[in-house]
This record gives sequence, C-alpha cells and structure tokens, in this order.
Amino acid sequence: MEKRELLYEGKAKRIYATGDQNVVWAEYKDSATALNGEKKEEIVGKGVLTNGITSLLFKKLHQAGIPSHFIEQISDTEQLVQKVTIIPLEVVTRNVVAGSLSKRLGIKEGQPLKKPIVEFYYKDDALGDPLLTGSHIQELALASVEDVQLLKQRALEVNTVLSSIFAEIGVRLIDFKLEFGKLEDGEILLADEISPDTCRLWDAETEEKLDKDVFRRDLGNLVEGYKTIYSKLGGRQYV
Amino acid sequence: MEKRELLYEGKAKRIYATGDQNVVWAEYKDSATALNGEKKEEIVGKGVLTNGITSLLFKKLHQAGIPSHFIEQISDTEQLVQKVTIIPLEVVTRNVVAGSLSKRLGIKEGQPLKKPIVEFYYKDDALGDPLLTGSHIQELALASVEDVQLLKQRALEVNTVLSSIFAEIGVRLIDFKLEFGKLEDGEILLADEISPDTCRLWDAETEEKLDKDVFRRDLGNLVEGYKTIYSKLGGRQYV
Repeated sequence: MEKRELLYEGKAKRIYATGDQNVVWAEYKDSATALNGEKKEEIVGKGVLTNGITSLLFKKLHQAGIPSHFIEQISDTEQLVQKVTIIPLEVVTRNVVAGSLSKRLGIKEGQPLKKPIVEFYYKDDALGDPLLTGSHIQELALASVEDVQLLKQRALEVNTVLSSIFAEIGVRLIDFKLEFGKLEDGEILLADEISPDTCRLWDAETEEKLDKDVFRRDLGNLVEGYKTIYSKLGGRQYV
Repeated sequence: MEKRELLYEGKAKRIYATGDQNVVWAEYKDSATALNGEKKEEIVGKGVLTNGITSLLFKKLHQAGIPSHFIEQISDTEQLVQKVTIIPLEVVTRNVVAGSLSKRLGIKEGQPLKKPIVEFYYKDDALGDPLLTGSHIQELALASVEDVQLLKQRALEVNTVLSSIFAEIGVRLIDFKLEFGKLEDGEILLADEISPDTCRLWDAETEEKLDKDVFRRDLGNLVEGYKTIYSKLGGRQYV
C-alpha cells in the first residue's frame, strides 16, 4: 500500500489517499487541542499512544462483533482504514455526569446517570459543535430518522463492550465521543478514533483522570495517563 | 374573589392567593427583561398589553378546543387562573428560524423550517435555561416520557390555532414559548402567558418585529408593536 496525497488534515490526524480508492492512510499527530481549538499544544509521543490505543480498541470491538472502518495498524503512528464519508455528528454516550453535561443539568461531576445517555452534537467548529435534537438533525438533513436511531443503537452497543473492556483493567468509562461514516453503498460504519482524546477514563480506585481532561484542565502531562491506558490494554509496556 | 398573600413574583408577573385554594390572582407587571434577566427596564403600559393579549388569546384558544389555566380577566393588568404546579420546561415551537436556533444551526433568521420544531428548555435561570433532549428530561425527572409526548402534541396544536389567528390579522407567528402546569389530579393544562413577550411576531408584509425582540435588540419602543397586536386581535383600539 502506497501513501499518496494529503486528503484532509484535522486537529489530531492527517488523512492521505492510497493506491486503493476504498482505503485511506491515517497518521496520528502529536497535537493536543481543546476548547474547540483555542487551546493547542504539541505533545511528543501522543500520536503513538492515540494510534496504538485506537488500533487496539477497534480490534477488540471487532472481536466483539462491532465492525468499524479500521483495517490495520501499519506503524507506531499510522493505520489504514476504509474510506468513508463522515456523518457530521459527534455521537456522545455518557454513563456518568461530567464536562458539559454537568454544566447543562447543574449536576456535579461523578454522579452516575440513571441510564446511559446518547447525545448528538453538530460537528461544526464555527458553530462550536452545538447540541442538536432529532428535529434539528432532520432540519439540517444530517442523517435520516432511521440513521439517527441506528447511530444511537450502535453507540449503546459500543458502550457495553467498551465499558467492559475498561472495567477489566480497573478503569471507569465515564463518557466518550464516536463518529460514524458511510461507505459508498450507504452502509454505516464506526469511524474516526477511540482513545483518551475522545473518552473520559477514570481510575476505578483513585478516580485519577487518564484522559484529555488532564490537558483541558491543566492537571499535568496527559501522556502519563495515556501510557497507563495503553499498557493496561496490553499495548506497549512503559514500566 | 379576594386578593390575598403574594405567592410568587416572577420577572413579568406577581401571583397572589385568593379565597379559593384552586384559584390564583395573576398581576402583569410593567417590567421588560431579556438575556436571562441581565437586561431590565420598566415600560409603562406593558402589563396592560401582555395581560390583555394573553386574556384574548387564551379565550380564542378555548373556543378552538384548547383548554388552559385561564379563568377570566378581572382588570387591565389582572386575571384569575387555575392554580397549577408549573412543569419546569419552556416548550418552544418554531415555524421560522430566529434567535438561538439561528445561532445553533448557522441558518439565517427568516428561513422557514421544513416543518415546525418543538424544543424543550430547562426553566432554570442559574443554568441559563439550557436546551434539553428527552434523555436529559428523564434524567432530571422533569416530566415522564408520556408527558413530554403530550406537551409536544399540545404545543403543535396551539401552533396550528395561533398561526391561523395571527395570519388573519396579517402577522406571522415565527416562534413562541409555552409553559404547562399540573392540576392536583395530575391533569396537564396550558399555563403562563401568550403575548409578544413569549412569541416572535412579524408583520407579514413588512417583516417589522412586533415582539420583545424590539427590546432585546434595542430596536425602539416595544409598546408600539404590542399595541398593534392588541388592537388587531380586537382588544383596545389605540388609533
């Protein structure tokens, strides 16, 4: 497989074409961004961790019967994935109140939800990724009613599998953001990444944050938490 | 009927007890507030207009088969209403993009929606009245799934009737906010007020704003638009 022209550069990844029109080459960058890009930093070694963790998790999800765009990891910071058209929705699943939900509902961080909540945010930096209701999604024609239902169902399935994977290594899955894409034939696939950049992960014993909130809230070096997650999941051992 | 102790003072109304425990006495104030109370002004004559318009509209809705808490207008600024426990949701129905929806979706004001949208906002000044999804409403236990469905249905019925009432007088109903309350036996009734304080109303020909946006956006004296609405609806004639 051959790396060709840059198709897209996002905040955390670069996507390149390959010789196969159905396959793209994803390169994970060392940048950390937060607050809709307002806060930004280069963190050496971050790309290795987010690529490694994403690759591991997509493999584990596949074993649990949940397909994704992931094909294979090809280097420390690179993976091959199926080419999809990303649905411009951030699908957020929550088990415990944190972040924007805490502010929205006036409930303190850490309170478990009665049952998992799935939210949809409009992937639009200029608008600040606003929360959308089903009616908004229909008005903007971002996804059909049936597709929204499917995304919600998939998100809850991923939540069940991921929560169990993390519980096994002593980590609580507080919430996480998924993105989905469409293949040319219309099939919807889980896409993007799943890493401490896109999940809130707390040590089950100490409640230590092992995710991007460490960066967002200036709590220290996020790389330490990411290394802990990667090692515990069975990836590279740093200790 | 006798006016007794003050039960509640809101931004636009005072609610008093009466000799009948099922009836309260609502007094419409001359205050205009916007931006969650940050902007505030006394506007002489406003209470007469919001009380008069609300009384007229609740009567017209009643004739159209939509019940509310409204009993009768008893003075220029006062009305008697059934005592209800307000459900802490602002039920917003929209026919045309305006205000916060324009900012949320990045669509310019004035674009008609494909179909009316009903949104729920948490009636909580401290939180800034945030948008809620159905899952948030369930988590906060603000209303049951069935009640939310009923509120949405009622809001759409009110929209049909109000849109027709306003169309007859050459006014477009852009959007409006309703509140609902529960009687002691659990029956849900339309409550609060319906006036240019709670509706966006544009002259169908000139698109002139005849509602509280005149105050919110410093476009002039809101009383002129409110008088136009009141007169056209068959209330006091100011010309």
